[in-house]
Amino acid sequence: KDSRVDDTSAGRLDGKMREKTLTMDTLNPQVKAVEYAVRGPIVLKAGEIERYLEEGGTKPFSEVIKANIGDAHAMGQQPITFLRQVVALCTFPELMDSPSFPEDAKWRARRILQGCGGHSLGSYSASPGVECIRKDIAAYIEQRDEGVPSDWENIYLTTGASDGIMTILRLLVSGKDSSRTGVMIPIPQYPLYSAAISEMDAVQVNYYLDEDNCWALDINELHRAYQAAKQHCQPRVICIINPGNPTGQVQSKKCIEEVLHFAYEENLFVMSDEVYQDNVYAPDCQFHSFKKVLYEMGPEYFSSVELVSFHSTSKGYTGECGFRGGYMEVINMDPEVKAQLVKLLSVRLCPPLAGQAAMDVIVNPPQPEEHTFKQFHQEKSSVLGALAEKAKLTEQILNAVPGIKCNPVQGAMYAFPRIFIPPKAVEEAKALGMQPDMLYCLRLLEETGICVVPGSGFGQKDRTYHFRMTILPSIEKLNVLLGKVRDFHISFLKEYSGLE
Amino acid sequence: KDSRVDDTSAGRLDGKMREKTLTMDTLNPQVKAVEYAVRGPIVLKAGEIERYLEEGGTKPFSEVIKANIGDAHAMGQQPITFLRQVVALCTFPELMDSPSFPEDAKWRARRILQGCGGHSLGSYSASPGVECIRKDIAAYIEQRDEGVPSDWENIYLTTGASDGIMTILRLLVSGKDSSRTGVMIPIPQYPLYSAAISEMDAVQVNYYLDEDNCWALDINELHRAYQAAKQHCQPRVICIINPGNPTGQVQSKKCIEEVLHFAYEENLFVMSDEVYQDNVYAPDCQFHSFKKVLYEMGPEYFSSVELVSFHSTSKGYTGECGFRGGYMEVINMDPEVKAQLVKLLSVRLCPPLAGQAAMDVIVNPPQPEEHTFKQFHQEKSSVLGALAEKAKLTEQILNAVPGIKCNPVQGAMYAFPRIFIPPKAVEEAKALGMQPDMLYCLRLLEETGICVVPGSGFGQKDRTYHFRMTILPSIEKLNVLLGKVRDFHISFLKEYSGLE
Repeated sequence: KDSRVDDTSAGRLDGKMREKTLTMDTLNPQVKAVEYAVRGPIVLKAGEIERYLEEGGTKPFSEVIKANIGDAHAMGQQPITFLRQVVALCTFPELMDSPSFPEDAKWRARRILQGCGGHSLGSYSASPGVECIRKDIAAYIEQRDEGVPSDWENIYLTTGASDGIMTILRLLVSGKDSSRTGVMIPIPQYPLYSAAISEMDAVQVNYYLDEDNCWALDINELHRAYQAAKQHCQPRVICIINPGNPTGQVQSKKCIEEVLHFAYEENLFVMSDEVYQDNVYAPDCQFHSFKKVLYEMGPEYFSSVELVSFHSTSKGYTGECGFRGGYMEVINMDPEVKAQLVKLLSVRLCPPLAGQAAMDVIVNPPQPEEHTFKQFHQEKSSVLGALAEKAKLTEQILNAVPGIKCNPVQGAMYAFPRIFIPPKAVEEAKALGMQPDMLYCLRLLEETGICVVPGSGFGQKDRTYHFRMTILPSIEKLNVLLGKVRDFHISFLKEYSGLE
Repeated sequence: KDSRVDDTSAGRLDGKMREKTLTMDTLNPQVKAVEYAVRGPIVLKAGEIERYLEEGGTKPFSEVIKANIGDAHAMGQQPITFLRQVVALCTFPELMDSPSFPEDAKWRARRILQGCGGHSLGSYSASPGVECIRKDIAAYIEQRDEGVPSDWENIYLTTGASDGIMTILRLLVSGKDSSRTGVMIPIPQYPLYSAAISEMDAVQVNYYLDEDNCWALDINELHRAYQAAKQHCQPRVICIINPGNPTGQVQSKKCIEEVLHFAYEENLFVMSDEVYQDNVYAPDCQFHSFKKVLYEMGPEYFSSVELVSFHSTSKGYTGECGFRGGYMEVINMDPEVKAQLVKLLSVRLCPPLAGQAAMDVIVNPPQPEEHTFKQFHQEKSSVLGALAEKAKLTEQILNAVPGIKCNPVQGAMYAFPRIFIPPKAVEEAKALGMQPDMLYCLRLLEETGICVVPGSGFGQKDRTYHFRMTILPSIEKLNVLLGKVRDFHISFLKEYSGLE
């Protein structure tokens, strides 16, 4: 050994080499295995280009458009005034005296603060969240589900939905036996799931959504995936994303029934990611909660299937990602396990109070008889109306491009079009040790400034290629963006088909 | 098998029993192993008593005083006006037009919003946090450490300090090899550490603080603990809490040097929990950051020892626990590992933006030349002055009780007095399958309404007993509380010494 100093070692006083404790060799390999495409290499590249432009560099475009992540406010969506009023009142209660804040907001803020220690947003809440907010959420769920009972003690506030999903998986995936625990997830999926599975070293069990049928979930495919997985692990949990991310499909009631029946028969724990429940655009589609469908299947199901549903402040019409608000409703969990869940939550003390307050406004919005209703309703409708329009626009423009096929964006916030990549481009990507759709997305970014995420980051059938883009930019910007995607795609096809 | 329905199973349509998927038998055993006393059984009991009192039940007291957790606002501490003004302005930027908000707060809020996507607190930030806030933190650290350089790219905002600590441990503790990774922690410790170690199935390596020497860290004890641990695991990381929680000691510069030299020699990764850095009360004590001491030890040390320091909005003079704000500064981490850290953080997207904004105010407070300085300074001094007074008061009153011995509360927010428990009480506790200090604390709660945490939840030398209580109640309330503890202790001693 010598005393050479480099990136991973530093000189020692006695001349012996002092090695770093934490290197790529000693790093937890499960962390190394984690992939999260939504903020992956393409987004790092986009950041580099942004800085390059800021520093006066030139590109064939003047700005980077980050269509990689469902970050509504970053795309210019305005916050819902009423929500921000309530949170501001909670943050700075001196504003209760201000005549410019509506009474409807003040009584909500007062009520939330009543539920906080010392009437301050600066206190820890109980680990499952502020009691009155949990009660509001339960009342909201009952109303949403047309009377299906909801017990507020089954509601747990979370730090965004991601936190809740990780926590529930942590209960289900056993450390030592992790490599025997199968977690069924849709493909394509939101990569939080695959990332969590990698981090916990569980077994990812893929069930493929049917692209030819608007990304519908086919029950036969569930059976196939389950039986195949049983050969090498014990599938214990099935994750569903409805409306779908990145695929935008909205599940039919019949399909949900089939999934629940399957979970019932195979003793699977059900995790239902319903963060896009307010984002349904297709006129022939409707959001059905897994819980309501379970209830309607009868008491044998409703009293036995273990189900957790997740919601969030980050999506819907509020798009309040930065508040890191969310909740989960936990049904039929063994009471002793529930106590363990609370214990686990308590180690991290509590979810952020501003996020809890924001969640409260979402489940307890202005009512028609309140003065604030009109403005609130206007703002909400305007956001959701524009999203519906953008969903349609995206589908139409993309489908008019030769070599792109986009299923209808029935819900959520993304298009996940299938793109034809010529064999020559596939070969070139392989030679570069890169997924073909990564090559495609990098070229798109370099040439147009548009940042989308390769389909390989979400999973897709072999030899099919996609990208995910949000539909969140303003209509004007979205039109420009889609036009650029079209032009890029056409020239990409030409280039690699040898027509140029 | 029959079709009986009970807590852990439910009837099946076909008459066979359907078992729950997630039971105490199938739950991740590492979750089961987690203990977190600060919100443990004694606090659940306190909640029960509170509800009983609310419902009109009677007890020998009228209210439960929760001295179990460092939750300043819940104990009546008022928020720092300026901090809340900035966060309210960020939350509801229409307030920028309000003449009742000071310009000093407005420019800070404008600057923070400039750093947010779409100038909204509702956007995700970059996973390591808002860039200008990271820069403010680096500047603050440089000033605090009298010029020791701080690189803003080494700063990562977190969701409270707990989140950062868990994340760094996650890198260090390898899934499959977890039971070979030793994590050195002080005893007594803050139970987040033991909880994280249990959850990750790592090896807890205890080094005992010296109660007879004001809970000082003795370097010989570090060597002993390390050598003993090496017999069965590889110690990779040493955690230090300075000022101490629950023990309140403030480490001397010499002691910190010794720890760092030890870490340097033994190739240990250093995690320095410095969330109480602003909470130093003893006139002969001063906070020294591990980073500054490392710097002063010379370039061989400063360029090689891997060190992460944690800070938080929850403690200090702000006590903003509910905002879940915090940061960590990461020194000498392998650049490739750092990229892995960013990837891991990105899966959870970002820390809450309101917490990031609160952190920014703490590191960028009003300056003497600003109009808001006077009020800010007054509020800050008043909180810290009262805490110093309460630290002294607590020590004095407790030490006047026969059978209680309390080290000086040099810093942080807790007293951790040693209590004499008569052998008869120890036997009774053992017969009940309970730690003796748990029996003591339960009795204290039942008889006085005072909720403190048994020392066994933090770790302590065999056959010594303690409890942790916060010094956060108002002076008036603290006097009452300490008086009740005294009376309880005396009568407890009498009862179990057979003198009654």
